[in-house]
Amino acid sequence: MPKTLPLLEDASPICCDPLGSSATLALDDAMALAVRLKALADPTRLQLLAYLLAQPDQEACTCDLAPVVKLSEPTVSHHLKKLETSGILTKERHGMSVHYRVVPEAIHAIARTLDTATRALTQVV
Amino acid sequence: MPKTLPLLEDASPICCDPLGSSATLALDDAMALAVRLKALADPTRLQLLAYLLAQPDQEACTCDLAPVVKLSEPTVSHHLKKLETSGILTKERHGMSVHYRVVPEAIHAIARTLDTATRALTQVV
Repeated sequence: MPKTLPLLEDASPICCDPLGSSATLALDDAMALAVRLKALADPTRLQLLAYLLAQPDQEACTCDLAPVVKLSEPTVSHHLKKLETSGILTKERHGMSVHYRVVPEAIHAIARTLDTATRALTQVV
Repeated sequence: MPKTLPLLEDASPICCDPLGSSATLALDDAMALAVRLKALADPTRLQLLAYLLAQPDQEACTCDLAPVVKLSEPTVSHHLKKLETSGILTKERHGMSVHYRVVPEAIHAIARTLDTATRALTQVV
């Protein structure tokens, strides 16, 4: 099991219910959530994440990920590093190749937040 | 009922299931989702959205929103415009004041996407 990144530990839990229960969202919680959303807010990174989510163990090496988005390995590594820094992926070296794996808790935390917001909106849809 | 923004109409539906069912995410879907995530990926905008979600009709004027984030009205208007451009809010002028309202479908679309990703991860948590 890959070690959780320090940044994720610092940021988690973002908040139990940041967008649904009250009118105020603490700045710290907003900042932690914004870091993850910013990392996700790129078409290439979303495509890489979609591919990883569909793999066994949600894991793949850079060499497999580059053809998915039709970009060079250095460019893909740059995007993967953004996802790693924000705690959405972890990285492990296997011999000559570098493998990235999804951190489920990070995706869960964002999904919970938006799910709460969705429930708050139920009455107006 | 406020009119849906053209950008939202162009972008919706992002996809029925973009992060869960298959290894590929079409570039168009990824770009539409990235636009909304990028608009949300800012602590001030998340705080403004949290406040709006807690209001009756998910609506407030700029004059009420500025004190929530302790910023000037022009700065808050800049942030609100980003949320409006990405289809997350709509804007209406009421006499001298400008009111912003949450577009539920935009939040739902993002939440559905991440919820699907979360379900895809169920087995590894």
